[in-house]
Amino acid sequence: MREHFELRAVDAGGRIGELTVPRAETTVETPALLPVINPNLDTISPRRLADEFGAEILITNSYIIHSTDDVRERAVAEGLHELLDFPGAIMTDSGSFQLSEYGEISVTTEEILEFQHRIGSDIGTPVDIPTPPDVTRERAEAELETTQERLELAETVDTGDMLVTAPVQGSTYPDLREAAARHADGTTLDVFPVGAVVPLMNEYRYDDMVDVVAAAKRGLGADAPVHLFGAGHPMMFALGVAMGCDLFDSAAYALYARDDRYLTVRGTRHLEDLEYLPCSCPVCTAFSPEELRELPDDRREEELAAHNLHVTFEELRRIKQAIRAGTLLELVEQRARAHPTMLDGYRTLLDHAAQLEESDPVSKGSFFYTSHESARRPEVLRHHKRLERLSVPGSLLLTEGQPARGDEFDESWRVEPPFGPFPRALSKSYPLTAEVPERTDRAALAAAADGVARLVETNPDADVTLGHRGWPASVLERVPDGVTLVDLDEA
Amino acid sequence: MREHFELRAVDAGGRIGELTVPRAETTVETPALLPVINPNLDTISPRRLADEFGAEILITNSYIIHSTDDVRERAVAEGLHELLDFPGAIMTDSGSFQLSEYGEISVTTEEILEFQHRIGSDIGTPVDIPTPPDVTRERAEAELETTQERLELAETVDTGDMLVTAPVQGSTYPDLREAAARHADGTTLDVFPVGAVVPLMNEYRYDDMVDVVAAAKRGLGADAPVHLFGAGHPMMFALGVAMGCDLFDSAAYALYARDDRYLTVRGTRHLEDLEYLPCSCPVCTAFSPEELRELPDDRREEELAAHNLHVTFEELRRIKQAIRAGTLLELVEQRARAHPTMLDGYRTLLDHAAQLEESDPVSKGSFFYTSHESARRPEVLRHHKRLERLSVPGSLLLTEGQPARGDEFDESWRVEPPFGPFPRALSKSYPLTAEVPERTDRAALAAAADGVARLVETNPDADVTLGHRGWPASVLERVPDGVTLVDLDEA
Ligand SMILES: [Mg+2]
Ligand SMILES: [Mg+2]
Ligand SMILES: [Zn+2]
Ligand SMILES: [Zn+2]
Repeated sequence: MREHFELRAVDAGGRIGELTVPRAETTVETPALLPVINPNLDTISPRRLADEFGAEILITNSYIIHSTDDVRERAVAEGLHELLDFPGAIMTDSGSFQLSEYGEISVTTEEILEFQHRIGSDIGTPVDIPTPPDVTRERAEAELETTQERLELAETVDTGDMLVTAPVQGSTYPDLREAAARHADGTTLDVFPVGAVVPLMNEYRYDDMVDVVAAAKRGLGADAPVHLFGAGHPMMFALGVAMGCDLFDSAAYALYARDDRYLTVRGTRHLEDLEYLPCSCPVCTAFSPEELRELPDDRREEELAAHNLHVTFEELRRIKQAIRAGTLLELVEQRARAHPTMLDGYRTLLDHAAQLEESDPVSKGSFFYTSHESARRPEVLRHHKRLERLSVPGSLLLTEGQPARGDEFDESWRVEPPFGPFPRALSKSYPLTAEVPERTDRAALAAAADGVARLVETNPDADVTLGHRGWPASVLERVPDGVTLVDLDEA
Repeated sequence: MREHFELRAVDAGGRIGELTVPRAETTVETPALLPVINPNLDTISPRRLADEFGAEILITNSYIIHSTDDVRERAVAEGLHELLDFPGAIMTDSGSFQLSEYGEISVTTEEILEFQHRIGSDIGTPVDIPTPPDVTRERAEAELETTQERLELAETVDTGDMLVTAPVQGSTYPDLREAAARHADGTTLDVFPVGAVVPLMNEYRYDDMVDVVAAAKRGLGADAPVHLFGAGHPMMFALGVAMGCDLFDSAAYALYARDDRYLTVRGTRHLEDLEYLPCSCPVCTAFSPEELRELPDDRREEELAAHNLHVTFEELRRIKQAIRAGTLLELVEQRARAHPTMLDGYRTLLDHAAQLEESDPVSKGSFFYTSHESARRPEVLRHHKRLERLSVPGSLLLTEGQPARGDEFDESWRVEPPFGPFPRALSKSYPLTAEVPERTDRAALAAAADGVARLVETNPDADVTLGHRGWPASVLERVPDGVTLVDLDEA
């Protein structure tokens, strides 16, 4: 059991956690956003990140510091916290990204971990191999072997109470990602970045990203803090958190600002294209788009970076509030409509509903059915599993209508799309108290039919009648043959 | 042609307009939000509404002013603008709402219009009869007749250059709403509130609200500014605008604040239940939920009202930006996931896709397919209509795959869900440049099949082959019998 990470609240795969960072003598509440600070130039000072935006942790690149003489000397002499003037926790990256971009770097895992420790990093990183998506299996396996050797080496380096990350690689091979995660989880290392997902995000391959992260999560214990490395767009935080990611880092807030790009949870906009500012942060209430455009370059970059950070931290607060209220998947439902590729990501997340169901709380405040996709949520899956454990009488009416009068049936149960059948006594228990639209859809009916099928398959001897309200033939096909069908709309 | 209302941009049924208010010597950009000011108490002063929130127009109740001796005297002596200290346009309500609540009021249409004119109102309102939903047809008709007499009377009252509203009633009878709108549109009156929808909104009957508004819109010209009377929750502004509403009023911002209720575009939250503030407005960046809870009552009310106004105006800016970018329906898609009843509202809006299609621009920036509902958007409908006008050769291959080689077919066209078939030459024209998810859904396939059906039905002599990628039987049923089917996934 990892003692430095404790879960406070859980919803689907998402969680609110507390990451204890001993070297910084602080705790960080997760999900957390780590602004990326370039030690050579900062758009928003680390002090301002802490004071104005509430940043509890940031990330900077120890390889850049190591490679820049004057910065290195100052970092060694003053320490990172003083150099950057930041009161929270500081994570350092190792140069692996530079390795993936330029093919080689000039430090080893031992050197860079020792250097990170020496300059006062609170969370250090070994030099792993960030294998890109879609490479051959041979390459993915070979590079993963190297990464795993580096992690084992990292375990042996004396880094005091600095936490050390154990990146999870494996390219787009789910079984390799899962094995990599299991290996990393077995080390004494502390924080688990899912590595090399940036190329997937750059190509909007949120479906593949979800599969990669889900695989990594299967190999990690619930007590492993997971970092979705390089994910800085607020549009996809809710999806990332629902998968079980705890840490995100953003260089985007500053890089995008440099190009006059304005972040929103619905996607990126170019300042040039904005006639109105769809935000009420301190920047967007002080300026019109025209006024922003007319600012001098560096001032405009600073204001846009501040806006970008505001929406980023705002979305994290919204996500944490949603986890507390048990409505995280409702938020993901909304974010899935920001772009067709985000919808692909959400549809893929629901392929992993059984995995999410393992951590999802037994009872929450509300289940809102808000799209066809809602029919595949873990709560529906759990109800279907529960159907296998319910005891069933000899003859049973399952009905969307009134219970049977007389003694034709031993019992009559309710049927509610998307859940399907349940004994009337459960009507007031979660999730059967769901709010559903009046205008139901085929996905909800199909899920209800699957519930009927599950019940009948577990109880092959029961004599079952289904009273439905005009379900179409393609839905009724999902109900086993032995069930007597009554269309209540025609009765 | 009404000269005081000009459209600047249109998307689906939504529009950006300019309402000229001659008496205020100003123009108001729509969609606009009119904060409701109670002349006896204001949480946020009208001056602050203008300066801090950019409110160009507000609404207050002339009946309350008329019934309160000291306020009446001051209003008559100073005029409304001075009394309220507001530099923009001021609309006044007549007391109809009080009539619906208390059964009677003590003024006539002539009296109240003359009074509104006397105190300097810029937009006045006659005393109509706000018939509630679900009354008998006889009552709805009788009350509508009275309302129509009042509107005709209002035309005769000398109110100088004050604009006058013509409320559209008719309860939940679409044909009465449409007839009422047509009558109102035929008067010389200026602004068109859709009345008595508050009871529908209070019961989350967004489906019925959409039907009522769609009916009213059918009776009104495109140049009629439409006020969705009593709609103040930012969650449903996008839906309201997409239907073609231009003016909204909000008492909610202040009333909710009084009860510690916090507005969001995803619904209302109680301050007590918030552990994080999902917003970055000046209030929410200055306070934590705990700090807000600890404020003295009147200060807390003021801060919550300010937050509520910020999210309200923010959503209006977002909507206006979406109209400019041609992405209003994408925004409605997202808001539809805030609550199952909002989804009902959106599904009902799509019942009126043909009506929206009439105003929707021929070309926009992008079509994002982001849910099963997207398959029913007006752009898809328009493409299906266009299929009837395309000339078709004797033998035609419609295919999701590669064009036919050799001379087996005269032409081969592409098939893209949700649009269906089109000649390859149209591939780069709107909306066929749509972004769609890789994981397509049954609704998109069904819409594509309907497109095939439309083409075949218009060209019964053509010899048509459809090459599809594994469409299920229930989708293929929609394709007419004469079409030769080839499953490309099995070929
Ligand atoms: Mg893909
Ligand atoms: Mg209803
Ligand atoms: Zn902003
Ligand atoms: Zn706020």
